[in-house]
Amino acid sequence: MNAELHHREAVELARMLRSGEVSAREVVQAHLDRIEAVNPAINAVVTLCPERALDEAAAADHRHAAGRPTGPLHGLPIAVKDTHETAGIRTTHGSPIHADHVPERDELVVERLRAAGAIVIGKTNVPEFAAGSHTFNPVFGTTRNPYDTSRSAGGSSGGAAAALAAGLHPIADGTDMGGSLRNPASFNNVVGLRPTPGRVPTWPSTLPWETLATSGPMGRTVADTALVLSAIAGPDPRCPFALAEAGSTFAPPLHVDLRGLRVAFSPDFGGTLPVEAEVARVVAEAAKTFAALGCHVEEAAPDFSGADEVFRTLRAWQFHLNLGPLIEANPGRVKETVVANAAVGRALSGEEVGRAKQGLAELFHRFGRFFGDYDLLLLPVSQLPPFDADLEYPTEVAGTPMADYLDWMRSAYQVTVTGCPAMSVPGGFTSDGLPVGVQLVARHGADLDLLRYGHAFEQATGFGRRRPPLG
Amino acid sequence: MNAELHHREAVELARMLRSGEVSAREVVQAHLDRIEAVNPAINAVVTLCPERALDEAAAADHRHAAGRPTGPLHGLPIAVKDTHETAGIRTTHGSPIHADHVPERDELVVERLRAAGAIVIGKTNVPEFAAGSHTFNPVFGTTRNPYDTSRSAGGSSGGAAAALAAGLHPIADGTDMGGSLRNPASFNNVVGLRPTPGRVPTWPSTLPWETLATSGPMGRTVADTALVLSAIAGPDPRCPFALAEAGSTFAPPLHVDLRGLRVAFSPDFGGTLPVEAEVARVVAEAAKTFAALGCHVEEAAPDFSGADEVFRTLRAWQFHLNLGPLIEANPGRVKETVVANAAVGRALSGEEVGRAKQGLAELFHRFGRFFGDYDLLLLPVSQLPPFDADLEYPTEVAGTPMADYLDWMRSAYQVTVTGCPAMSVPGGFTSDGLPVGVQLVARHGADLDLLRYGHAFEQATGFGRRRPPLG
Repeated sequence: MNAELHHREAVELARMLRSGEVSAREVVQAHLDRIEAVNPAINAVVTLCPERALDEAAAADHRHAAGRPTGPLHGLPIAVKDTHETAGIRTTHGSPIHADHVPERDELVVERLRAAGAIVIGKTNVPEFAAGSHTFNPVFGTTRNPYDTSRSAGGSSGGAAAALAAGLHPIADGTDMGGSLRNPASFNNVVGLRPTPGRVPTWPSTLPWETLATSGPMGRTVADTALVLSAIAGPDPRCPFALAEAGSTFAPPLHVDLRGLRVAFSPDFGGTLPVEAEVARVVAEAAKTFAALGCHVEEAAPDFSGADEVFRTLRAWQFHLNLGPLIEANPGRVKETVVANAAVGRALSGEEVGRAKQGLAELFHRFGRFFGDYDLLLLPVSQLPPFDADLEYPTEVAGTPMADYLDWMRSAYQVTVTGCPAMSVPGGFTSDGLPVGVQLVARHGADLDLLRYGHAFEQATGFGRRRPPLG
Repeated sequence: MNAELHHREAVELARMLRSGEVSAREVVQAHLDRIEAVNPAINAVVTLCPERALDEAAAADHRHAAGRPTGPLHGLPIAVKDTHETAGIRTTHGSPIHADHVPERDELVVERLRAAGAIVIGKTNVPEFAAGSHTFNPVFGTTRNPYDTSRSAGGSSGGAAAALAAGLHPIADGTDMGGSLRNPASFNNVVGLRPTPGRVPTWPSTLPWETLATSGPMGRTVADTALVLSAIAGPDPRCPFALAEAGSTFAPPLHVDLRGLRVAFSPDFGGTLPVEAEVARVVAEAAKTFAALGCHVEEAAPDFSGADEVFRTLRAWQFHLNLGPLIEANPGRVKETVVANAAVGRALSGEEVGRAKQGLAELFHRFGRFFGDYDLLLLPVSQLPPFDADLEYPTEVAGTPMADYLDWMRSAYQVTVTGCPAMSVPGGFTSDGLPVGVQLVARHGADLDLLRYGHAFEQATGFGRRRPPLG
């Protein structure tokens, strides 16, 4: 039976663990075996702590056998994104500067995963400082796509998404500033939810009121993603900016009748972004699926003007604030794109930052009005399917040259600055068999609705059930 | 009976209105009469709309008589702070530039007051653009203290506080960036609550994630203040940054047993601020009152270092963002102090703004730890009692020269940047009979606790019951 544990949905595995049908130690061991067999081909899990994980699993089994209460993630193994600090487990941020950094404490999202019963088995790979949506760094190298190892797994939560797809662990976490939960989900045929900012609080944080970056859940299904969210969402007194609903709000089941739902879709952001034909097709087909589920579907795009400038300004500003001193202290040891972004941030005036913040507010209000007319918006996640893993970034999309490593991520990062929750759900495959996600966007705060819509879509299509050719 | 309506507590008046013992029209008329008699001496209410108010009162009486539902503020007259936009009623912000500005819509706080049944009778005076804690401007002149008309009523919600004290209306609203709800409450022997940022959402706003400025309630008693808060607190979908509790959470009654409460007090911010002896005495006596109520009281001050720089940087930045274009378009028509503050803001780098935001986060976390050890902190509200109304600002406090018009407000604005809710409650009088408030501060989000502590203090002391000598 253990041989197939790594293919189980997390909600099913959690049920089996609760019922005693399987032990946490068995589940952890099965996934460690799977990692040994499959990870070398994709390089998704880059740090492992098997002894600690097996010890914690045994302790969890003991508590369960003694009838003590267990959390919603009891016994589920997870490797944590390598930009999330884990007490006692090396956390490199994909940087040689931090290659030997072993934190003394868990950050809040890890604390919550563990408190909910998840067992940390290691860390998942990231781009250096999570910059860019393709996962490679000088410490661990490149993560490869389990559907085609010549292709990118996306990023920055690329290790997490590839690991999920390959069955290395049943649940995952990530972060998303410009698409880092959504793009790798799209590339690896799994689910990644960028929640409304404040839904998953961050601690420690030196800029706790900033809304660009957020932690969030990933899973192989929407229900599994919701299960993780239920463990990591909800306010914490150490965080001044948090939405109030308790995490348990988001626990499955997620069934909903979509009849009458007002759905807008735009395969190309109203003609403003280049999008590869195979990606646009997936969005158009997703629209048809929602129509078949009884939704009122129409092609319509909200106005994203200003989003580019707002995102790039605030991102550069935060890069400088968070990484500037480190870059200065370590000349030549940070990748050039990050150095360049931080330099842009260093040169910003207070007024430029302020105008970007005012632009952020304008986008928020504009999308508030858009979601007065629609319940759900369908967009591409990424503007192209998984690209050559040996590229630093794709240099053109649908015939349009890309100016820099951020340019092809606009379909994701322009959604970031609307403040709305957005989720990548498996939407289909290219003619070459590469996964393509569809981006579902709902109004600010409507994370639960978004999960429900995604669950209904997933039930109707089943694309996520096609596993990668890894044995 | 009408002759004494203006001395009633708002909660009592609200009860009388609900029971039909008195009509909204009678209550409004009584307050209009009071304004006619007393306002000329203090210049607190600067715009009046008596016909509209009486019409709305009659309509409210009609709805009440028909058994239709009424809100918690049913029939209570209010003049709104002149920096809050009111549809159809002139809103000047104390600036000649806006002397004839009549907004087309109510801003959210006004919308809520009216939806709760309050009847807008006019506007209360403010300093030009609410800058500074002394209420004078070129449009309407100076608001004077009802306890001594040669003295300042404080600011920027100075018109509101003086009007409350003088019985011109039973409830009031205000805003607080650097003490603008607390300082005038202290100067006029009323209650002003600066809530936790996000408690009272702001709309429209071009910088909705900024936490320095917030709207809040004022009253002659803590219970009246809580009544107003219950009408204006709670999330709104147009505001991305709001605490979740519904307004009704804060509705009176507020009774609580304070035995065992851990109270810190510091009459002089741990020796870091000059404070006049009569103010320091009030804080020390308030500490004794809490001890007599069974609290564990000790002299202790949290570390406010960095608060000055953080406040002044972020304030200047916002002044430039909000007023810079207006100042440029209207040379010579904005007061010099505001022009100078905005010029400081214009010169800020993005890095300086970012470091101030990081400082804000550090203060938030530091005070989170302080309120792990204490439930309540007692401080001075203002560093001196009400000063000469003909001064632009006091030039010295306890022998220390003040460098500028913000310098004497540090006891209020340093609390702003902690993120904690803070309330001014009547604390006593100087030997000259001038009111002195005490500043109660509780942990981030603990607005209801703060109201309860303030209510118990008020019940034990009764300073707020001494009305001004205005007949």
